[in-house]
Amino acid sequence: MSNSFGRLFRITTFGESHGAGIGVIIDGCPAGIPVSEEEIAADLARRKPGQSKITTQRKEDDAAEILSGVFEGQTTGTPIGMFIRNTNARSKDYSHIADKYRPSHADFTYQEKYGVRDYRGGGRSSARETAARVAAGAVAKAMLRKLGISVSAFVSQVGDISSPPYNELDLSKTEENIVRCPDPATAEKMIDLIDSVRKDRDTIGGQVTGVIRGVPAGLGEPVFNKLHATMGAAMLSINAVKGFEYGSGFEGMRMRGSEHNDEFIREEGKVRTKTNHSGGVQGGISNGEDIYFNVAFKPVATIMKDQDSLNEKGEKVVVSGKGRHDPCVVPRAVPIVEAMAALVIADFYLLSKTSRIDPTID
Amino acid sequence: MSNSFGRLFRITTFGESHGAGIGVIIDGCPAGIPVSEEEIAADLARRKPGQSKITTQRKEDDAAEILSGVFEGQTTGTPIGMFIRNTNARSKDYSHIADKYRPSHADFTYQEKYGVRDYRGGGRSSARETAARVAAGAVAKAMLRKLGISVSAFVSQVGDISSPPYNELDLSKTEENIVRCPDPATAEKMIDLIDSVRKDRDTIGGQVTGVIRGVPAGLGEPVFNKLHATMGAAMLSINAVKGFEYGSGFEGMRMRGSEHNDEFIREEGKVRTKTNHSGGVQGGISNGEDIYFNVAFKPVATIMKDQDSLNEKGEKVVVSGKGRHDPCVVPRAVPIVEAMAALVIADFYLLSKTSRIDPTID
Amino acid sequence: MSNSFGRLFRITTFGESHGAGIGVIIDGCPAGIPVSEEEIAADLARRKPGQSKITTQRKEDDAAEILSGVFEGQTTGTPIGMFIRNTNARSKDYSHIADKYRPSHADFTYQEKYGVRDYRGGGRSSARETAARVAAGAVAKAMLRKLGISVSAFVSQVGDISSPPYNELDLSKTEENIVRCPDPATAEKMIDLIDSVRKDRDTIGGQVTGVIRGVPAGLGEPVFNKLHATMGAAMLSINAVKGFEYGSGFEGMRMRGSEHNDEFIREEGKVRTKTNHSGGVQGGISNGEDIYFNVAFKPVATIMKDQDSLNEKGEKVVVSGKGRHDPCVVPRAVPIVEAMAALVIADFYLLSKTSRIDPTID
Amino acid sequence: MSNSFGRLFRITTFGESHGAGIGVIIDGCPAGIPVSEEEIAADLARRKPGQSKITTQRKEDDAAEILSGVFEGQTTGTPIGMFIRNTNARSKDYSHIADKYRPSHADFTYQEKYGVRDYRGGGRSSARETAARVAAGAVAKAMLRKLGISVSAFVSQVGDISSPPYNELDLSKTEENIVRCPDPATAEKMIDLIDSVRKDRDTIGGQVTGVIRGVPAGLGEPVFNKLHATMGAAMLSINAVKGFEYGSGFEGMRMRGSEHNDEFIREEGKVRTKTNHSGGVQGGISNGEDIYFNVAFKPVATIMKDQDSLNEKGEKVVVSGKGRHDPCVVPRAVPIVEAMAALVIADFYLLSKTSRIDPTID
Repeated sequence: MSNSFGRLFRITTFGESHGAGIGVIIDGCPAGIPVSEEEIAADLARRKPGQSKITTQRKEDDAAEILSGVFEGQTTGTPIGMFIRNTNARSKDYSHIADKYRPSHADFTYQEKYGVRDYRGGGRSSARETAARVAAGAVAKAMLRKLGISVSAFVSQVGDISSPPYNELDLSKTEENIVRCPDPATAEKMIDLIDSVRKDRDTIGGQVTGVIRGVPAGLGEPVFNKLHATMGAAMLSINAVKGFEYGSGFEGMRMRGSEHNDEFIREEGKVRTKTNHSGGVQGGISNGEDIYFNVAFKPVATIMKDQDSLNEKGEKVVVSGKGRHDPCVVPRAVPIVEAMAALVIADFYLLSKTSRIDPTID
Repeated sequence: MSNSFGRLFRITTFGESHGAGIGVIIDGCPAGIPVSEEEIAADLARRKPGQSKITTQRKEDDAAEILSGVFEGQTTGTPIGMFIRNTNARSKDYSHIADKYRPSHADFTYQEKYGVRDYRGGGRSSARETAARVAAGAVAKAMLRKLGISVSAFVSQVGDISSPPYNELDLSKTEENIVRCPDPATAEKMIDLIDSVRKDRDTIGGQVTGVIRGVPAGLGEPVFNKLHATMGAAMLSINAVKGFEYGSGFEGMRMRGSEHNDEFIREEGKVRTKTNHSGGVQGGISNGEDIYFNVAFKPVATIMKDQDSLNEKGEKVVVSGKGRHDPCVVPRAVPIVEAMAALVIADFYLLSKTSRIDPTID
Repeated sequence: MSNSFGRLFRITTFGESHGAGIGVIIDGCPAGIPVSEEEIAADLARRKPGQSKITTQRKEDDAAEILSGVFEGQTTGTPIGMFIRNTNARSKDYSHIADKYRPSHADFTYQEKYGVRDYRGGGRSSARETAARVAAGAVAKAMLRKLGISVSAFVSQVGDISSPPYNELDLSKTEENIVRCPDPATAEKMIDLIDSVRKDRDTIGGQVTGVIRGVPAGLGEPVFNKLHATMGAAMLSINAVKGFEYGSGFEGMRMRGSEHNDEFIREEGKVRTKTNHSGGVQGGISNGEDIYFNVAFKPVATIMKDQDSLNEKGEKVVVSGKGRHDPCVVPRAVPIVEAMAALVIADFYLLSKTSRIDPTID
Repeated sequence: MSNSFGRLFRITTFGESHGAGIGVIIDGCPAGIPVSEEEIAADLARRKPGQSKITTQRKEDDAAEILSGVFEGQTTGTPIGMFIRNTNARSKDYSHIADKYRPSHADFTYQEKYGVRDYRGGGRSSARETAARVAAGAVAKAMLRKLGISVSAFVSQVGDISSPPYNELDLSKTEENIVRCPDPATAEKMIDLIDSVRKDRDTIGGQVTGVIRGVPAGLGEPVFNKLHATMGAAMLSINAVKGFEYGSGFEGMRMRGSEHNDEFIREEGKVRTKTNHSGGVQGGISNGEDIYFNVAFKPVATIMKDQDSLNEKGEKVVVSGKGRHDPCVVPRAVPIVEAMAALVIADFYLLSKTSRIDPTID
């Protein structure tokens, strides 16, 4: 239950950073969705380490093998299994921290919960697990494409450097630079900042913004599984995420109702809203406007500096910075945010088919 | 599924603002928890309307009848049913908006999803549903108390007025003023602001901070059901919430790893951290430090001013501000935040009992 | 989780035989289903005690109040709450067995599991809980009626007396006698047997057969949630049930493949099968033929004779037969079997809407 | 959701008979359980085809690779992935039935549900999927062994030939013959019958009996998830199963309460019952006695004879018997029944840890 996400379009991930590999099962994907290994590979390439000078130089060959559920290029309704073998897992890199608790990592808490742990590279707690999500998200995206729904994300902030709001940007430019910010001027500053942080052997946080277009009105649920609540859970489940906001977000708490309310208007025969402080979701259900949200990432905990800490016996130790790690996680987090967002929308789409019945068309 | 929350300590709420009432079933509460109607009533009183000059003047007599699951003052392991009858639901107040879409309410989206709706007071989308959560939360709190865990919340911001951070405040003072901010000076300013907004026939947003103390290390899950991800979903499922952050939160994205990392230290034989940017959660699992988080609320959508909108036929209409509504929702949201937080922790506590087995004590 | 049944059309029951009452929440019922209290009352009347000389003479006024989810005679998509108050619960009847373990009841096992129990009338383990299922089943039946699906059940065996197979009977005659066997000659013998068992202050077992007509091909799931596996779980969850079989059932194990296989034929443009040993389900999925199954009930454990047993301290005691109980449970079990069957089919119907997507009609 | 089984100890299977392979993810297995590939291999060998003259002569090399969740020979609390590659899947064997509906197979119903299907060897509907369950069951058995619980099954009937009841047999002899009936005389007759059926190019049904010993009192749930209801669902989800009964089963409906009730007695300081018509479960919860049940299997649908049928266009066709199939499924079903039983008990064991809390030992 704890390694699954979604209700009807449901994924279960498995695997550790230094075991045989990382995998995912998608249960509940409808039959008839075209799935290609190329599409999956393309998204995995956006997440993989070693892709540019501002990411970790660790090389991982993230190729997903489809184990089941696809026949003659289409989903068949049976569970879709995918597996990404670990090929470049240098376990020896971790022997020096086998019994040490790295600051702000999951080492201590994992040990407290389970009594044992695979200390190599964080084991299950490694962000490598998100490769499985990206593979699953590519299938969800393929389904949404059939429905006219697009999911995109980009880097909107690094440290103190932030981009203009999403609706002033051309999101098709996101992949044109290595930091994945569609505003070229901002991107350049972000890259410089990350590079200087890297030279300091330090790390820095940032923000990814997600934008979903073409979602029909009526997706979501009115009470616990509000569209934005499930979206929030999806985003907060990504490693290093510290906050989530949608629409007006935290800024909304400073506003008055009279300025915050989105006036309903009619446009080309459709019910629209003049402004979109609601972020495309009202009362937990989509209203047809763009869904947009921000996801805050803390600085990566692994730094290239020595840090004081404790070992499993409670003795003082020094954790020294070794290995190959990212100075800033957000450029590689973009496809992860997209994947999780696509999974959420795919799930709500399926659920929306059960909210009323019409015997005449069924 | 959509009206349930929790995995093992699981609640299902039901009811509408203008039907017979609002209720909740708790399934999975362990046997042997002392439950008193007084305790439940006390928390409901903190949520109920009409409690002060800065809340709606609508009067609701929120008395929860325990329908099942409690025998001789203790839980028996069977589902606990509670029901709060609606006694002062003036349905006629809503006839003027029966076919109108109120701006930034759920009227339009609900209609799109289900094809029908109970237009009286928002029906199921009304925040009155949260009374059921508060009743259930009181049972969760009783269970946590047995385990030495305390859950509290307070108002930390209204509009632009914010309180000092939680660890500089005496949280036992929260109930000493009507805005529920434990800092008297800040509280006064907040009350003045809300009062002036109310006189403007407008509304304003704010923020509630939650603090949980005494949680043992080892609660939570490493991947999708990270403690903070489920906590975020819980908070984002509360009406009018626009954002959630824990620990360093959005501010964390401006920080460097070297300052953000929490150093492990030993204190009175226990593993502690020197700072707590992690917010008591590392890798999705509690580390024994205080869990704290912020929840942003937008301004209430119902304002006492006329607003342009559409009706169900798509025609232009004016929605005029009538009824009895809150100028700011955060003072009454405090017990709701506490209730949802207690439900999350109770659930993770039960789940934590299954992470390893020890035949010698079982 | 343990008091819920169903995935999309999901019920949660609560309440004890001697508390305030018994209730149910239906979560996931689509909007637009007509629901009438009369229909619910009619099914409850078929389950209620005291309805004839061969049932318990205990009187219970089983009136379900609709607490939520129905507006102007139709479901709205919100959870449907129903509550049946206990009006004639004579708790003093049970004081004589407060600390005794009644043979073949749940007293001992419940105590072992929870450490406490409500000893009055079995508490949560009482078959009175099934009234809530019957109320929920009436809503499921209303939904299925809209889809052209009918659910019926009848008594097919009492002790050694059995009726002809279902397809030789006119099921519309089931309600014409008090034992609910549509074959008048068999019914008479069954009634005589039950009456003589009653005079012996003893009880006897029996069998209920369920028949579902009009289910379209394609409902069910290929692996764990096979239609018949979920149907079996539904039936085995009814008090006193000891066995479940569908189609050829246990008799099928004596047959050869060449006689057991159902030949596909074409009839009026539809794919049909010549025989129906499959019981309307192949590979876990409905094939459009009648779904039929048998449910075996043991003799009621409460008998009007003295029995040796133990009390909570492990001391020998005599449990004497008092109270008002059924000599045979099957006549009153008929609407319960129907209710659970309707809930299963309603749930699979909703799930079937997600097995493929067709953007052109969605 | 449809390819998962269990609540806390939860498996998800994937894969088709003629794709890359068959796999399973176990989510929720506690940390610290010793897992060996040998143990898993031993159970897979009992299920695999080609093991004797009375099973199919098809050869499959069922070797499970552990992909995750096991570190240094023990479970770590993370999901356990296992994969069994298909090595001898002769897809060409199935080209002759690509568009034909084999009688009493899932071809037609699968096509109706999903609109597409992998026709090779039944695809997902193939009993090959159960190899994944057997692998997972071996892990569950390892956990139960630590708790002193043993799970076993044997063939108790083939056609009309049945063995004595389980408590008159020495279950340690089950593996001593190829039909897996611990009574040598009965086994011989069963083998002769299966062999003669095989020579007739036909198939025959049978029954497997499961026996679980050492289950402590208190496992199970009082209402929907009764121990026997979940056990029934588990068994009915196995391919070709038509019926399930536990304890007195269908025979119980012929009995009177006075003979059926199990008298409580005290033996060696423990509460026991004199007889065990309850099958170790009372009110859905284990009472500490042996849990035993029967599972009825129909004759295998694939026979070596020509059969009339239809194709996808609705045209009359002849399905001719080719390929390599079992004349009787029960000898190979024994480890599958054991696996599913072990999964059910492991799950209820974990759930039982949440029924009450005791802060002094937690």
